Amino acid sequence: MTNKVTDSLSAGTLIEGPEITQSELQLAVRNHSMPLEALQYAITPIGLHYVLTHFDIPAVDPTDWALTVGGRVRHPLRLNVEHLKARPSTTITVTLECAGNGRARLSPRPLSQPWLVEAVGTAEWTGTPLRPLLDEVEPMDDTGDVVFTGLDRGIQGDIEQHYERGLPVEECRRDEILVAYAMNGQPLPPQHGFPVRLIVPGWYGMTHVKWLRAITVLDDRFLGYQQASAYHSRLSDDDPGVPVTRILPRALLVPPGIPDFMSRVRFLGLARHVLSGRAWSGCAPITRVEVSADGGISWTEATLEDSIAPYAWRSWSYVWDPTKPGEYELCVRATDDAGNVQPTAQNWNREGVQNNSVQRVRVVVVESSNQVQAPADRRI
Amino acid sequence: MTNKVTDSLSAGTLIEGPEITQSELQLAVRNHSMPLEALQYAITPIGLHYVLTHFDIPAVDPTDWALTVGGRVRHPLRLNVEHLKARPSTTITVTLECAGNGRARLSPRPLSQPWLVEAVGTAEWTGTPLRPLLDEVEPMDDTGDVVFTGLDRGIQGDIEQHYERGLPVEECRRDEILVAYAMNGQPLPPQHGFPVRLIVPGWYGMTHVKWLRAITVLDDRFLGYQQASAYHSRLSDDDPGVPVTRILPRALLVPPGIPDFMSRVRFLGLARHVLSGRAWSGCAPITRVEVSADGGISWTEATLEDSIAPYAWRSWSYVWDPTKPGEYELCVRATDDAGNVQPTAQNWNREGVQNNSVQRVRVVVVESSNQVQAPADRRI
Repeated sequence: MTNKVTDSLSAGTLIEGPEITQSELQLAVRNHSMPLEALQYAITPIGLHYVLTHFDIPAVDPTDWALTVGGRVRHPLRLNVEHLKARPSTTITVTLECAGNGRARLSPRPLSQPWLVEAVGTAEWTGTPLRPLLDEVEPMDDTGDVVFTGLDRGIQGDIEQHYERGLPVEECRRDEILVAYAMNGQPLPPQHGFPVRLIVPGWYGMTHVKWLRAITVLDDRFLGYQQASAYHSRLSDDDPGVPVTRILPRALLVPPGIPDFMSRVRFLGLARHVLSGRAWSGCAPITRVEVSADGGISWTEATLEDSIAPYAWRSWSYVWDPTKPGEYELCVRATDDAGNVQPTAQNWNREGVQNNSVQRVRVVVVESSNQVQAPADRRI
Repeated sequence: MTNKVTDSLSAGTLIEGPEITQSELQLAVRNHSMPLEALQYAITPIGLHYVLTHFDIPAVDPTDWALTVGGRVRHPLRLNVEHLKARPSTTITVTLECAGNGRARLSPRPLSQPWLVEAVGTAEWTGTPLRPLLDEVEPMDDTGDVVFTGLDRGIQGDIEQHYERGLPVEECRRDEILVAYAMNGQPLPPQHGFPVRLIVPGWYGMTHVKWLRAITVLDDRFLGYQQASAYHSRLSDDDPGVPVTRILPRALLVPPGIPDFMSRVRFLGLARHVLSGRAWSGCAPITRVEVSADGGISWTEATLEDSIAPYAWRSWSYVWDPTKPGEYELCVRATDDAGNVQPTAQNWNREGVQNNSVQRVRVVVVESSNQVQAPADRRI
């Protein structure tokens, strides 16, 4: 449909310098990550949770909406929101992360949504489990993928498409997969998939199809654009690559002190500071978080708090006691029970997915303030 | 406090090319504008409304929070959230826009938050009117500013500060100014100022101080950083400039058709299309919206719907009937009752504020789709 009229750079073009193109900026002003200070909340408030939308956010009239569950099944279903709410419901706390998180720190940088490190969020999702729904429609075979189709529509890779992703039938039978209609106890906000989305705990965000309109059982692998072309870790264009599935471990730090508006460099006094943050992995439980105050040369283990839920991030803290003023680079890295450790070097690939290299926060420790504008209520 | 250790470019540095620096990207991934398709909602859902935070979003424990109303007053007050909620309450629908909206379209571009055109949103704000509060504390004189101090703290212009802004006492006596504790019927989300913020209908966003902790009456003009240095329209560094106050008119269009993921170019069929959007001005009611399909050469008047509230945007629509396939540049411009008209050229100034030049949306009209991936539920 595009007839190649777009003279902009295509998604995936490699950019050598650190400067961001206008195309990337257009995505960056629409989509947003979670400001790092929001790591303070175990459950991310609505509006702070990261959002990525490939196309436009559909405005859905719920009275017109229905979900079809069909394809190669014996008893297809058509359900409206009330039908879904009348089914058994579960609430689970899940950390979601965009597969492209960390992309803008790659060099060269594949052209796409330019995330730094904070495309993440944790919410309480309420919905009805997928498994009984699948049992009810009775797939004719267990060899194919189940495809989840959203209402969002656009063009990517020169292909006009609805956003859709597939999951093997056996993966769909995990108990904790939800057809979700509420987030943090409220109806889904439009940008998170109102009225209904998929939640697949442990997998990167592309799997959690929003504005769900159809669940379709195939007798084969699904080969749509977002499945077979996008979301692969490839070292070159010829590399068949590895499909992106579960979230690799990452730890993030609440940047301590106060920021400079433009540089975001942090300033803090010469004193003991309790550093804290959260760590997660979709592969296995987090078993260790380490902190470095020298840019990743030396590491010390942080204290992990108890896990709040199997697929939610885990809180950690670390007492940092800098002994002299100066500039420091704080880093944090997570290890999970499957032995995955965050790398200090970039995890480069052609599409810029799964770059879970460690966070680096530049801080300046100062003896005392030397130019402070006292707030008006203290000047009187 | 900074001791000039930041080697990043300072806010306000002029950037010649269209490429966005890493400093700007750090702001762009934290703050976000309103995706243009959200113009469909008269009231912007939480999470889609634009957000700009100079420093960090404070996490406030409302049981610890209090608002002091003091300075040069006869009867200072200290109020908690319950005190505020026990006072008379009003709900008003207000369109807020960042003063820097449009900055990233300037050439050269002043370094700061790189907004394109959509740093806007409309919400129903509930709170208690400011005027009776001021009457109660009895300012000793009516010649100075009232300063609103937020809990957010950081460094800007090499000055450590709490975010704060002043308003002349007489302006504070407008009936519609609110000390607000709810947005769209819910407690303020953290990013919009929980627990309490100021709402000054008609003024750009910098005036609506979030995380309000103090209201302080001065006997003089307020000369804090965000008042005397920032938020001025200046042609050069020597220019004393004009302070930014009320919102200049702007109209925006819901981009029609479907987007290409990366370029955001829009594709639509050769047919009649009802274009729609919203227009607003903080200076006077919107009296006219015009649409151009040829990049601003010729203009035709759109149909305006009734206003929903004095300080809220106004809906408009326009039937566009392109007669042949090809590329078009859609533009829209607003005029208000004070005679302010959006310019087609950039409104350049040193800080990149108030650039309300007309929106430009690139669309491609096509005869029919030539490569469509049918969704899975239609392929079975």
